[in-house]
Amino acid sequence: MLDPARRADFEALDRADPLATKRDAFVISDDVIYLDGNSLGIPPRASLDSVRTAAENEWAGDLIGAWNTRDWIGLPGRLGDRVGRLIGAAAGQVLVCDSISVNLTKLLAAALQLRPGRSTVISPADNFPTDLYMAEGLSDLLGDDRCRLRTVPPEHLLTSVDDDTAVVMLTHVNFRTGAMFDLRSTTAAIQDRGALALWDLAHSAGAVPLSLDAANVDLAVGCGYKFLNGGPGAPAFLYVAERHLPQVSQPLTGWMGHARPFAFEPGYEPAEGIERFLSGTPSVLGCRALEGALDVFDGVTMADVRTKGTVLSQALISLVAESVPLAGLRLVSPADPARRGSQVSFAHPEAYALKEALIEAGVVGDFREPDLLRLGITPLYLRHVDIFDAVLRLEHTMTAEAYLDPRFRRRSKVT
Amino acid sequence: MLDPARRADFEALDRADPLATKRDAFVISDDVIYLDGNSLGIPPRASLDSVRTAAENEWAGDLIGAWNTRDWIGLPGRLGDRVGRLIGAAAGQVLVCDSISVNLTKLLAAALQLRPGRSTVISPADNFPTDLYMAEGLSDLLGDDRCRLRTVPPEHLLTSVDDDTAVVMLTHVNFRTGAMFDLRSTTAAIQDRGALALWDLAHSAGAVPLSLDAANVDLAVGCGYKFLNGGPGAPAFLYVAERHLPQVSQPLTGWMGHARPFAFEPGYEPAEGIERFLSGTPSVLGCRALEGALDVFDGVTMADVRTKGTVLSQALISLVAESVPLAGLRLVSPADPARRGSQVSFAHPEAYALKEALIEAGVVGDFREPDLLRLGITPLYLRHVDIFDAVLRLEHTMTAEAYLDPRFRRRSKVT
Repeated sequence: MLDPARRADFEALDRADPLATKRDAFVISDDVIYLDGNSLGIPPRASLDSVRTAAENEWAGDLIGAWNTRDWIGLPGRLGDRVGRLIGAAAGQVLVCDSISVNLTKLLAAALQLRPGRSTVISPADNFPTDLYMAEGLSDLLGDDRCRLRTVPPEHLLTSVDDDTAVVMLTHVNFRTGAMFDLRSTTAAIQDRGALALWDLAHSAGAVPLSLDAANVDLAVGCGYKFLNGGPGAPAFLYVAERHLPQVSQPLTGWMGHARPFAFEPGYEPAEGIERFLSGTPSVLGCRALEGALDVFDGVTMADVRTKGTVLSQALISLVAESVPLAGLRLVSPADPARRGSQVSFAHPEAYALKEALIEAGVVGDFREPDLLRLGITPLYLRHVDIFDAVLRLEHTMTAEAYLDPRFRRRSKVT
Repeated sequence: MLDPARRADFEALDRADPLATKRDAFVISDDVIYLDGNSLGIPPRASLDSVRTAAENEWAGDLIGAWNTRDWIGLPGRLGDRVGRLIGAAAGQVLVCDSISVNLTKLLAAALQLRPGRSTVISPADNFPTDLYMAEGLSDLLGDDRCRLRTVPPEHLLTSVDDDTAVVMLTHVNFRTGAMFDLRSTTAAIQDRGALALWDLAHSAGAVPLSLDAANVDLAVGCGYKFLNGGPGAPAFLYVAERHLPQVSQPLTGWMGHARPFAFEPGYEPAEGIERFLSGTPSVLGCRALEGALDVFDGVTMADVRTKGTVLSQALISLVAESVPLAGLRLVSPADPARRGSQVSFAHPEAYALKEALIEAGVVGDFREPDLLRLGITPLYLRHVDIFDAVLRLEHTMTAEAYLDPRFRRRSKVT
């Protein structure tokens, strides 16, 4: 068992933490240790304020006029540029809109258009399912001769890229293991073989430094509700490198992507820049929740976030490794922090029950099929003592075999 | 000039109005006469409450657990069924999700699949532009041999349907004129020629009675932010008749449409019922705003809404017609209420400036290219005196030539 006296070391780390005060920006209870920010981030106070203002002042006050007076119409581009700062993208290349799934269809179709004569979409077989499903849906729609999804073992990803590969679609940080690709070298290797690189940043944006422009990334998507803390079902984002914008189009050509949406012209003419990747009317309340959440990142560098995240993750791994009662937990995330995103996953045959028992003990993580306990590290609101306390409670749950209680068997729809 | 003493007649109508108390369900100021509910409805109090609860209690309180404890995961289907009641659709055929634009791509592709060998999408040339744009985008993606958009003069719509027509896509109430198709006979005529009927109910749902099931409609979309008062950029809805569900698929095959989204299986398998038309993670805050807005319709029949709407619209038309200073306004909406939705549009060469000057006078309507002043009638919160007062102010604006002030020239991004 871990010696409770060691908590003092973690308290000392908290006192020296330059990000410590950021915790106050969130509505967070000291009763819960929330290691599930990689599924849904905790609400920033500014996010709740922003939603309340949008609904109760702007909608109720300015009604239809708010599209102009509060520049609701500019939200997708304005928020896109703010997300851009966090992912290393200069202005005019990122939009906040729709869901990752819908945005993937836009970008996969754009990639096929940018690589005429090539029809294969390559993706690691362990990619997040919705990414694979969207490619499958596009393939079913277009036919195999125009769009074919080929899933390959991740270790064979680059050697699989051939003359028919239009695009490699891959998630930067794996949703199960937390394993992280090197953005720059992987992008370069894909492009060396003539294909485009389409990155899913769902588990990266807001957690690890990203340099999309510097890495010469072609296309990317990401979500607003995990490490960006933008709220449940927050709008997603998409990135298209500036060099591709003049010659690229996308098939979901809704009125918001038109050069002159309020001219109500019968024929579609795409907007000049990234706005051509818009489709329908943006979700104002969803955008405004994300806007407030992005305020929390003001004055913070992603390098600082990453540094603290690495310390927290390494502490978690070390404490579990040295705990005798936790010997049954097998680390499945890379041990090397440079190859790991901001999450730590352990395999255990009773991972689901363990996750449920931990929730009752005030530690929220999540379960991923088939046997993973997945713990997300959000440096903006987690303290060093939270990691120590979480491992203590995990030890207690395991030692007391609390997780074997039948109450903790599988039942919920959403895991 | 209208005799101000006639206001008493309208006050009497308000006293006898069975829907009069519904006005209290909205955050509405007596300073503004809001005739723009067909662009963005006024916030229902229950909608603001619902958003606040979702953000401040559910997100902040239950965090990731709220997907189960608050059944966020069930929102698209649960709200879909509630919208279904208002549009004459039995349970299990309506979903609240995405935007009209995105949903149109799903349904157009589904229609082409249901009518193999047919490739034409026919639409009235004066349909709402985003509907035409989405069909154009799908046509560009699939090629003319698989999907071809043919726009026709509305009066030739039915005679244009031929052996190659897979689907007729049409908006029930025209966004400019308010002209309304007969849902049942038009659907039957389209189907008699072997095509499917895909209706856009953006300007109908919540304003006029609809009987999608009884009219044997095949497919439909609609929006949440106009007469349903679901908030800015509220999620849209889609309808697929139960008889089509077993054999139909759609191309935006995101994880929420999978039979088992949380099994994270590599291959896509569509959910059993209407849920296969879901794509990405639903916008919880957007859904919850709409959920509160739907509460206002509880205990109300669409027949009552329509009856009052007709009285208000007829009063507006009559008062304008008898006003000498308003002789320059030309009614472009059908005079027959049975052929008109819940809006009244007038043409005037200075319609834009008139709209702006009216806003300053406390009457909010909107402008539509090229020369239309469009006034929407929302019976749930408008009073009979509002119509009388609006016409008085319109008379004053016109008589004083207030609208000629240079301040009222075109400038805003969103009209």
